[in-house]
Order: sequence, then C-alpha cells, then structure tokens
Amino acid sequence: MASKGVIASAVRALASSGSSASSTTFTRHLHASGGSKKIVGVFYKANEYAELNPNFLGSQERALGIRDWLESQGHEYIVTDDKEGPNCELEKHIEDLHVLITTPFHPAYVTAERIKKAKNLELLLTAGIGSDHIDLKAAAAAGLTVAEVTGSNVVSVAEDELMRILILVRNFVPGYQQIVTGEWNVAGIAHRAYDLEGKTVGTVGAGRIGRLLLQRLKPFNCNLLYHDRVKIDPELEQQTGAKFEEDLDAMLPKCDVIVVNTPLTEKTRGLFDKERIAKCKKGVLIVNNARGAIMDTQAVVDACSSGHIAGYSGDVWNPQPAPKDHPWRYMPNHAMTPHISGTTIDAQLRYAAGTKDMLDRYFKGEEFPAQNYIVKDGKLASQYQ
Amino acid sequence: MASKGVIASAVRALASSGSSASSTTFTRHLHASGGSKKIVGVFYKANEYAELNPNFLGSQERALGIRDWLESQGHEYIVTDDKEGPNCELEKHIEDLHVLITTPFHPAYVTAERIKKAKNLELLLTAGIGSDHIDLKAAAAAGLTVAEVTGSNVVSVAEDELMRILILVRNFVPGYQQIVTGEWNVAGIAHRAYDLEGKTVGTVGAGRIGRLLLQRLKPFNCNLLYHDRVKIDPELEQQTGAKFEEDLDAMLPKCDVIVVNTPLTEKTRGLFDKERIAKCKKGVLIVNNARGAIMDTQAVVDACSSGHIAGYSGDVWNPQPAPKDHPWRYMPNHAMTPHISGTTIDAQLRYAAGTKDMLDRYFKGEEFPAQNYIVKDGKLASQYQ
Repeated sequence: MASKGVIASAVRALASSGSSASSTTFTRHLHASGGSKKIVGVFYKANEYAELNPNFLGSQERALGIRDWLESQGHEYIVTDDKEGPNCELEKHIEDLHVLITTPFHPAYVTAERIKKAKNLELLLTAGIGSDHIDLKAAAAAGLTVAEVTGSNVVSVAEDELMRILILVRNFVPGYQQIVTGEWNVAGIAHRAYDLEGKTVGTVGAGRIGRLLLQRLKPFNCNLLYHDRVKIDPELEQQTGAKFEEDLDAMLPKCDVIVVNTPLTEKTRGLFDKERIAKCKKGVLIVNNARGAIMDTQAVVDACSSGHIAGYSGDVWNPQPAPKDHPWRYMPNHAMTPHISGTTIDAQLRYAAGTKDMLDRYFKGEEFPAQNYIVKDGKLASQYQ
Repeated sequence: MASKGVIASAVRALASSGSSASSTTFTRHLHASGGSKKIVGVFYKANEYAELNPNFLGSQERALGIRDWLESQGHEYIVTDDKEGPNCELEKHIEDLHVLITTPFHPAYVTAERIKKAKNLELLLTAGIGSDHIDLKAAAAAGLTVAEVTGSNVVSVAEDELMRILILVRNFVPGYQQIVTGEWNVAGIAHRAYDLEGKTVGTVGAGRIGRLLLQRLKPFNCNLLYHDRVKIDPELEQQTGAKFEEDLDAMLPKCDVIVVNTPLTEKTRGLFDKERIAKCKKGVLIVNNARGAIMDTQAVVDACSSGHIAGYSGDVWNPQPAPKDHPWRYMPNHAMTPHISGTTIDAQLRYAAGTKDMLDRYFKGEEFPAQNYIVKDGKLASQYQ
C-alpha cells in the first residue's frame, strides 16, 4: 500500500491546493504508511443477541472477528455504533484514524466535512456493498481509496428480493396479522392474492444482484424485463428469457412487479418521484432493497394510500436507522423491514473475510481485487459516474 | 353420468346390504339421474371484499360464477358458508342434495353420518385439491364419486411454499414487526437470518406440488432431497438435482428446511409426532401447506418453544377455521396464515373452470379427466390408499 499511499497523498495535495495543510498531510501519510494504523469500525450493536451465534461477525461486539489479528500486528482497532452528531464516538476519532470500516446496515455517513477533518484518513472500506454513505466526490478529491466487498452479499439480497416479490403477490402480511390477532378471514387475503406465474416482472438495473434475481425468477414462468445502461450477456439473456428495455419509462407501464436494483447515484436519487410512479401500472407491486433515496418518500406514501402502488416492500430507508415517525412504517400495504437483506450470517462471514483480505493487502501494499474499488486514484467506479 | 349413476347406486346397494333402504335408494337414483339436480356449494364468505375483484370466484357471493349456467338448465343451486353443527344451513340440505361442492379453504366436513343421511348424494366435488375433509372410505362404500380439480392450484401452492421457506430462512416476520412497532434493531433479526443458498432442503412428498417446488428451488443452489413412495421421473431428477431418500427418518436429520407435500391419509395423520420431530436437525425450519393434521399439534408447539424447530410456517390447521385459542397462533417463531395458498385469484379462475367442466360432464353422463378422481366405483385413488 506504500505506493498507493503516495498516490493518495499526492492527489490529496493537488485537491487541497492553496491549503497550507497539504504538505504536512503528505509527510504524515508517508510516515504512517509503514507503521501502526488506527482503524475505526462502525457496526450495529447486537446487545443480547451477540452471544447467540458465534458467526454473528457483523455486530459491534464481534467486529468482523479481526480484533486479535489487527492488534497482534500493532494496529489500534476502535469499534463503535455511535456515529451521529458532533459528540458521537466516531467524531472523536475522525481526526487521526487511518481506516474507517462501516456497513450499509448501520452506515457511518462520511461527509465532505468529515473527510476534511480526517487528516490521516487513507482508506474507507464498506463491509458489504453500496458506498453511497460516503461523499464519493469528496473522497476522490481528497485522494482516498474507497472499496467494498463486491459480491459478498449479492446472493443474499437477490434471495430476499424474491421473498418480497412473493410476499406482496400473495398478500402474506395481512394473513399473518389475522393469525396473531385471533382472526380467520380467507377472503380478506384472497381477494388480492395472485400467482406470480404469468405476471410481468421488471428489474430496474441488472447488475450482479439483478442478474441473480432473473436467474431465480426463471422457473416461475414470468415475463421478465430489465432496464440498464447496457445489455446483459447474451447467454444469460437467453438462459433467463429476460428482455432488454432501453427506455425505463417504456418498461414501467408493462410491469406487474418492479424491482429496484440500481446503486444510489446522482442520477438515481429520487428516480421514482410522483411523475415516474404515475407511469407505472395501477396496482403495481414495488420491491426496493437498493437504497431508500432512490424513491421520493412522500410520493411512495401517496401512491400506496391511493392504491396506485398495491404493495411496497424493501429494507432500505432514507435515512437509516429509520426514525420512529418515518411514514413508510405506517403506509398501507407495505412489507418493510430494517436493513437486513445483505447481512445474513452467511453474508457476514463473506464480507468479514473480504474486509480482512483488503486490510491485509493494504498493510502489505498490495492491490485489492479490481472489482472492489469504488474510488481509486481520484476516480469513481463506472456505476457511480 | 347415467351409467355412472347406476354403478354408484349399485355399489351403494351392495355397501348397504341388510339395510331396507337400499332398494329405495337404487330406484330414486335412477329416477334423479336424468333430471334436475340439487347442488350445494360451501365456500368462504367474502363480505365487503366480494365487490373488490370481479374474479373473486371462490367466494360464497360469486360461488364459482356458475349460478346462471346451472339455473338456466333447471338445476337448483344452494350456496352457504354455514357448515358446522346440527342446525347449520348445510345440514338442512344434506338429505336431498345430489352434488356437494366445497373447497379445502373452508371445507364442508363430509362424515360417515352425513353420507348416511344424504340419500340422493351422487357426487362430491372439491374445488381445489385435497379431499381429506371427506370420509373417503365411507364415500367409497356408499358408491359416491369424489373428484378434485387436480392441478388447479399446484403452482399457487408451490410458489407459496418457496415464499415461506425464504420468510423463515431470512427471519422476515420479526423484521416486519419491528417496523410497525416503531423499532429498529438489525441485530435482533440478523443473528438468525441466513442465505438459502447452500442449505439442505427436503420435501416429504414429491407429487405435483413437490416437483414444482423442486424446480423453483433449483437456481437457489441448495442441496435438494425428496422422500416419496416412488422415485420421480429421471429427467426431472437430473434437471433439479434432487436426490431420492427412500427412508424418511434417514432424510430428516440431513435437512435444514423440511417441506411437507403429502396428502392427509391414514398413514400421514400425525406423521410428525414428538419422536419424528426429535429426529430432525436442531434448528430445523418446517413449511407445511399440506394439511395441519399431518403434524401433532402440541409436538410442534413444544419444539418451537424449545427451539428444536427454529421456524414453522404454513397455511393449514386442524381444524379449519382455526379457533382463536389454537396454540399455533401463539407459538414462537411461526409465520402462519389462514388457508390461502391455493386460493389465489388465478387459482380460483382455474378451479372454478374445472368444477364447471366436471358438472357439465356429470350432466351429460361423461367421464371426468382421469386424474381428477379421488373415489370412483368404490375405490380410492392410489395416493389415498
């Protein structure tokens, strides 16, 4: 990582041109690169659940299972779930940390201000997928490296999406509610329960997760559509029978079910606003495990209330954790959960291993797997451009 | 149906040997066969939901959409949801009905006593699949024909099973509950949420539904097992990668997820008792959309309470509707619903059409599709033997 440290510092120096701090930063970085690092991890707290599963590596208490390994090499490892506001635990360490690790499930928001304060910062690691909690342009301008554990939980999320499609199509939630409240009213569920077979399902985005979803949908005999910047591999297109839709607004009215599978970028923020939701078929079902801010929050509430959206399910919110008064908690026909789809125990084992691997390479000055980079040498990965 | 009426009456006469009523019955049947029939349908009531969907054919209000068709041919069509106890509406018509139509979702229980009372009864039709609400031996002895709309909702049930597998594997229900109660605790869900990928899923029974489930599970990259009386088609075995397990008790300890896909028969009643559940892996997840009585009710409650069963989901109960104090409503880690999986709007369209087709053939004296017969000429279909 020594050579990368030099590049990072050089880019940072260029980006901070006119700042008196730039040469100091440069020197400190070179000095720090070889030695002991201060690493901060921000994870959700497990509390009473921490001891229930030895593989619960994504929790604050287990902290990816890398503490002994880091400390045995002389590094400092601070772990917290306290990430918001000027007096939070994270804020105390911003000034001198070298590496910040966080997850999309309990994200440490890395703003331009925090980046400016973080004089020693070299590396931002996302244990999982999706780095929109970081101001990526500011990170690039500051010469930081941002990397994810690409692929670590794509299967987890795709499986969860198929579950949510079925939960909405079958009208599961009111059925469950009847049982726990002592009721029995088949008609109250069945009048709006359908088979998935024969319905049209469109994915907005056919990256790693979207493609895995299409493969899992194949045996359900649906009409599969996908919209993306580019077409998927012809072999996969043939295997799944999915049809490419170049124009998103032409695809939406065809879909009984829409699944959102794009990263949150400047182009996708608020993509599903009032006008775009109006273009969807009346009674559409929407699954969004991508990012909450891809939707206009109030437009979703209004469309669920009017019945234009007949069901909405996802695990992503804006912001996270969702406050108690977030309107998606209380809108009709939702099947929402906290942000859980990518943090199964299996996913935790994979993203903990992937994070450890990148730290090891960082200490040794080695490159990361190419697909893991989100910001490198001052440039954003293509999906964030 | 004239020739079948003769056979039915003849078998009934033989079965009632010694009864003075037998020759009377014989005469009345011959007389009734050509003319106007009294048909009784027992369906769940839709109430305020009846008008919400024009295809809600399975409700009492829409009554399979065959009233005009039946009445235009001079038949009488009585429809009710009142099916229990000596003073219920159904009981009033038992003595002189010719055909009884019901569904597994709100079953009219056809006991030996009711069959004895039903002097004119010739045909019992199940709008859907599963005729265990009928005393099939008594029906056979009385020379009745029992038939289902085989295949009408197998896709609906298989899709629903896959939903329930994922709901249990991903620990969806506590996630949803957190949202509607204003909470946010990712750890409370994630410590026992897993990927389905790589897990071992076994189906007990690989008939029409079980086979559709195996096909839909294929892209999830699980280890698939099945137990049945006979092996499935070698081509399907190769396509799904499912392995045959001749010995149920040898399969159970291998499974992370068990799905029940057998009819309820004398052999499967109480199949999952305390001893058999103890043979399952600790932490097993069980999905049962087959019939509630295949499980020992209290054994399931006890195993869910101890954690031996880590999750139980299904839509079938013993009896149905489940009383308010049914313990499955209140056991830990369940994801139960009323009996809904086979009564999607798509399934209703299919089983309404299939029922109408059989009635039409019955009036014309034609054979039903062979796979629809459950009791014919005094014999039970092989799956019920």
